[in-house]
Amino acid sequence: MRINFETAAKLIKDNDNFLILTHENPDGDTIGCAFAICRALQLLEKKAKVECFDKIPPMFEFIPESVEKQDFEEEFIIAVDLATLELLGDEDYIEKYRNKINLCIDHHSSNTLFAEYTLLEAEPVAAAAAETVLMLIGHLGVEIDEVIANCIYVGISTDTGCFRYFNTTSRSLRMAADMIDCGCDSGNINKIMFETKTKTYAALEKMALGTTEMHFGGKCAIITITREMFNESGSDDSECHPITAKPRQIEGVLVGATIREMKDGAFKISVRTNPPVNASEICAGMGGGGHMRAAGCELRCSYEEAKAILLENIKKILEM
Amino acid sequence: MRINFETAAKLIKDNDNFLILTHENPDGDTIGCAFAICRALQLLEKKAKVECFDKIPPMFEFIPESVEKQDFEEEFIIAVDLATLELLGDEDYIEKYRNKINLCIDHHSSNTLFAEYTLLEAEPVAAAAAETVLMLIGHLGVEIDEVIANCIYVGISTDTGCFRYFNTTSRSLRMAADMIDCGCDSGNINKIMFETKTKTYAALEKMALGTTEMHFGGKCAIITITREMFNESGSDDSECHPITAKPRQIEGVLVGATIREMKDGAFKISVRTNPPVNASEICAGMGGGGHMRAAGCELRCSYEEAKAILLENIKKILEM
Repeated sequence: MRINFETAAKLIKDNDNFLILTHENPDGDTIGCAFAICRALQLLEKKAKVECFDKIPPMFEFIPESVEKQDFEEEFIIAVDLATLELLGDEDYIEKYRNKINLCIDHHSSNTLFAEYTLLEAEPVAAAAAETVLMLIGHLGVEIDEVIANCIYVGISTDTGCFRYFNTTSRSLRMAADMIDCGCDSGNINKIMFETKTKTYAALEKMALGTTEMHFGGKCAIITITREMFNESGSDDSECHPITAKPRQIEGVLVGATIREMKDGAFKISVRTNPPVNASEICAGMGGGGHMRAAGCELRCSYEEAKAILLENIKKILEM
Repeated sequence: MRINFETAAKLIKDNDNFLILTHENPDGDTIGCAFAICRALQLLEKKAKVECFDKIPPMFEFIPESVEKQDFEEEFIIAVDLATLELLGDEDYIEKYRNKINLCIDHHSSNTLFAEYTLLEAEPVAAAAAETVLMLIGHLGVEIDEVIANCIYVGISTDTGCFRYFNTTSRSLRMAADMIDCGCDSGNINKIMFETKTKTYAALEKMALGTTEMHFGGKCAIITITREMFNESGSDDSECHPITAKPRQIEGVLVGATIREMKDGAFKISVRTNPPVNASEICAGMGGGGHMRAAGCELRCSYEEAKAILLENIKKILEM
């Protein structure tokens, strides 16, 4: 059931002992949301803790380190930035929480309403789920401290490519401004998130960009990341997110896609588009989903088959 | 003489037939400022035109195209984003305007107060001169239309690296938000300014990054751009600005510098720093100047000498 901010705030005030769940392969938005809520609940004198199926990438580690760790038996479960239960973790983990999530706070228009209650500000209203979380914290009457400000800023800035993607709204910018005024360390966060390349990442990026293939008269660019590249560069999956933005940057490209070989042999497809192409439509044809300009899916087949399926789905949308 | 916003607004209201000058090698801030004021003056039913010593780079051409071209004899000269008269153009051009500039609107703390009147919001108050121009337009009582909104947004976003550099303040973000609400086409501007690589730029970037040299135990990275690289890539000087941000991005680097061979054989040095290193102090030692985190100078000598001078000046500041 979809609920509004007032109802969500009341629900939270009436409960205690919160467990907050992120999506798998956690990004800045889901991590920022989870720890912002966790901190806000703790400031309301409630018990709250965060759980994440995957390891939190090193660049985001300062966030959990800034929030108190509490140990207790959970009574109320919140999921953040989670469009479908299937994006929570592996099969066992999904089963553990099936029908147990009380509240989902999200901004994906594709949210399947899997939770008991859903607070959804579908895009384009909220560029990041962190915007929705900030609105909710306002309804809870919690004063924004530096910890919450950093969490919300990380969520909004990472989901908008530091305010440069098409999803950025004037609200995104004003909320970020408010977080700076509440003590957020935006300069250093930007430096870490957007202006630092580790040597391992730089090596991986160079190899990946070397695989760039152009298709459909230059409207589509595809790059490939193999396990061998991770081994050679010393990089790992947690670092490769920024590469997915690169193929879309090439002049004239409408669809930029990345095919990444996963540890288990499957291929993770990331699709980024320029207007008017809808990335989530391309990925819906391959059993995935996401946003207008950023979507993804996973294919269990050979690399050649994965690329053929991807190209076929891109072709379909480009010809529409 | 330094004046405040009220006095600057009165000065403008009391005069007519404005010529607005940018600095040489014009960037988004000086171009955005010039055409924002030009448009605001035209909306006040005054005559106004912009003059730029160098060609406006292709990515900014939509800005002059959006403002009416007027022909008249100038009576009042405004310079924007100009720290010293020497940055106006070549020697003849500088002489033409020496002691003729009535008002300078700027944000460089190094402004030499060369104009009759100077409206200066020195950094860190104004991340971009476009912020100061927007404040002034507010004092003039001009309503922000889409044209002005685009100009101001281009100025603020380009001078802050799309809100990711350390100079970005909450005011920068709020002003950008206001410009979006006034009809600025921020999505497409961001796409053109920050998320598109022309094929010629991509080729130049690859060659330039290939020259990366590390110095002082990894605290300094230097890259070189030669005329030969421009010839081979098909790129030109107007495209190479984004490359100057790259050496600073390498993990552990405090000073990232670019040595660019100019058409006349001189070497343009661009220095970008991370806290706590002051880029303008490094360049001051080489007869140049600029900001805390971005500064530059020109050296007339051989490439080897230029690099030696640069390294010596960097060493001095790193050892302080």
